[in-house]
Amino acid sequence: MAETSDGPLAGLRVIDLTRVLSGPFCTMILGDLGADVVKIEPPKGDPVRVQGTMTEGHSGYFAGFNRNKRSVVLDLYTDDGKAVLRRLLADADVLVENFRPGTLDKLGLGEAALEELNPRLIVASINGYGSVGPYVDRPAFDFIAQAMSGFMGVNGEPDGPPMRAAAPVSDLVAGVYAALGILAAVLGREKTGKGQTVEVAMVNGLISLMAYLSSEYFATDTVPERTGNDHPLVYPYGLFLCSDGQIAVANSHDQILRRFLDTLDLGWIMSDPRYDSNPKRMAAREELRETINGRMAGQSQQHWLDVLNAAGVPCGVVQDLHQVFTDPQVMAQQMVIKVPFQEGPFIRTVGFPIKLGGTPCTVNRPVPRLGGGTREVLREIGLSDNEIADLIGRNVAAG
Amino acid sequence: MAETSDGPLAGLRVIDLTRVLSGPFCTMILGDLGADVVKIEPPKGDPVRVQGTMTEGHSGYFAGFNRNKRSVVLDLYTDDGKAVLRRLLADADVLVENFRPGTLDKLGLGEAALEELNPRLIVASINGYGSVGPYVDRPAFDFIAQAMSGFMGVNGEPDGPPMRAAAPVSDLVAGVYAALGILAAVLGREKTGKGQTVEVAMVNGLISLMAYLSSEYFATDTVPERTGNDHPLVYPYGLFLCSDGQIAVANSHDQILRRFLDTLDLGWIMSDPRYDSNPKRMAAREELRETINGRMAGQSQQHWLDVLNAAGVPCGVVQDLHQVFTDPQVMAQQMVIKVPFQEGPFIRTVGFPIKLGGTPCTVNRPVPRLGGGTREVLREIGLSDNEIADLIGRNVAAG
Repeated sequence: MAETSDGPLAGLRVIDLTRVLSGPFCTMILGDLGADVVKIEPPKGDPVRVQGTMTEGHSGYFAGFNRNKRSVVLDLYTDDGKAVLRRLLADADVLVENFRPGTLDKLGLGEAALEELNPRLIVASINGYGSVGPYVDRPAFDFIAQAMSGFMGVNGEPDGPPMRAAAPVSDLVAGVYAALGILAAVLGREKTGKGQTVEVAMVNGLISLMAYLSSEYFATDTVPERTGNDHPLVYPYGLFLCSDGQIAVANSHDQILRRFLDTLDLGWIMSDPRYDSNPKRMAAREELRETINGRMAGQSQQHWLDVLNAAGVPCGVVQDLHQVFTDPQVMAQQMVIKVPFQEGPFIRTVGFPIKLGGTPCTVNRPVPRLGGGTREVLREIGLSDNEIADLIGRNVAAG
Repeated sequence: MAETSDGPLAGLRVIDLTRVLSGPFCTMILGDLGADVVKIEPPKGDPVRVQGTMTEGHSGYFAGFNRNKRSVVLDLYTDDGKAVLRRLLADADVLVENFRPGTLDKLGLGEAALEELNPRLIVASINGYGSVGPYVDRPAFDFIAQAMSGFMGVNGEPDGPPMRAAAPVSDLVAGVYAALGILAAVLGREKTGKGQTVEVAMVNGLISLMAYLSSEYFATDTVPERTGNDHPLVYPYGLFLCSDGQIAVANSHDQILRRFLDTLDLGWIMSDPRYDSNPKRMAAREELRETINGRMAGQSQQHWLDVLNAAGVPCGVVQDLHQVFTDPQVMAQQMVIKVPFQEGPFIRTVGFPIKLGGTPCTVNRPVPRLGGGTREVLREIGLSDNEIADLIGRNVAAG
């Protein structure tokens, strides 16, 4: 593990006031790309440190969001804690926070104060609904953002309830967008010499992913219906049953559908007058499902995956996480990596989704113990060992 | 509409060979942030141009992924078309493509050729599974990426099938990650003077969003179960029935749950010996659901949203897209914007999820007509009007 990073963001100092999910995901990505991320934690630490199943006393959930960071404990309810934070910010490139709107102001770090302190500072905020509008003061949470954004309303069976995604997509998508906005602002600063604010709301992030569902709504003023795993406009498409389980097949247009049916020796379907157009096939959905399942039941998932992929038909298994994290492709992509805790064990986490050919993402720093970087970081901003000992003695800092 | 952009990426030239979803989403975000995006299209155009409901002959689906770009038509099956592309790339900062791995090589634009042509060029690829590993040649599609990544397997009711998200999340998340990787590479280039490759796979992007589902799997070797809209570890949590419809409530920990139950005048639940711990409440799920629904049925959604949000309980309506796109908060966040087609009508599209305080995202360029930028862009790289007319006359270019 390199002590310093060769990543593309090496030298970019990020002061990270975030906790839980959206913010820590944002700053971890910046750290993966080489930024120097200083995670400021309250004396009790990020609540995720004690969540999830522990491995030798360490939270894997926390590890999944906090590799490549140093932890500095500061009590921001004290004036001295705030003074140290200001000193850190005077020298930093980026501040990231995911408090409710208005909290930075209460810390004496409103927009004007930060601009005076460091006009080059980029100030990134991640929140639920945004800092302007009637819902600004509402508490936010992934499940609620999924509901309010329209994302959840289109998921699920036509005759069933709207269905959330189990993964906290609104948090994580907001985190990725925030990292992107931060880098854009860093590039912009090279022209203007000035920082600026970057804000991403969880609800807005999910709204931006609605793709043709939103464009069709805008074009027709008609609300899309839930269609389960079937495609709203095309059939056959969806899950089909092999001898040992289902596979997902995406016959997104006629050319692929022909390959699919030919591979199944069901090519006649496309010229049968009952099924020779997509509208007819949509109307005969249940009949066709039975015909196709009847044929697929004769062979295993693996058989159909092999022959259909070879024929150019997009298909796959609905993998559970054990299958995912032992899948040869996922392994070849190094999407499982071992990461150390500072003074603790190595554990598995998800790897890097961004693959850079020249300066790849790496693990430069372990998952920090609470306050594990306090002394080092405070020394870097010019505090003497005596000053640091004094702050720690008065519980303003810890580490 | 400004002719040129003041955005943070102004001056960054992106040559965009992508089509359909993941790539065009990536480059649209770069364009929204001010980059100069040149979309290279084959003579027939991006297939999305003719998909979805048309407004005065224009596809809103296409608009949702292609504002802030110029369109140049080049036939890359011709040597002259390839030569023009090479000339564009010699002068560009970024190339983005979402072909299957290996296609660039076939165009004579493999990694070595591109490095020789322009060592500062950043070459970004978006694909299904990545360019290394046993599934490299498999066709990819959002539905299949949702299945293979584990994302779909955890969504849905415990006794129902795995459930895809209706929105094409794997495409769009990959697009956002690619934009982020590109900007990281641009920043890295300022230190090294050299470009590099950036690759994002749809499956990897979704795997990275699994959060505690993956960390719990790594810690326990146990596969998470589907839990529908309920939280796997906490109850009460989920959808509850008011007099006029459901609301989503996220009582993610005891402190919030107390606020929720107190607001409902059901505070006794937390001290009733049948329900005084979360495990007991999990076991008594159905009883509690009935008790809570019984109370909530006495008032409307709006009543409960008002009093619960005021009490600090995260809650919301499962909005359909009509509700979303008329929601006062969504409007205040300008998440619906009107965008013009080049020589066509204005239509509504989704707004910008990244809010920059200093140099905000803007619509600098309309949704281009096919080849609408051919002459202008080819002039910019030094072709004479005669040369351009010749290329158009021989159907190598069009516009």
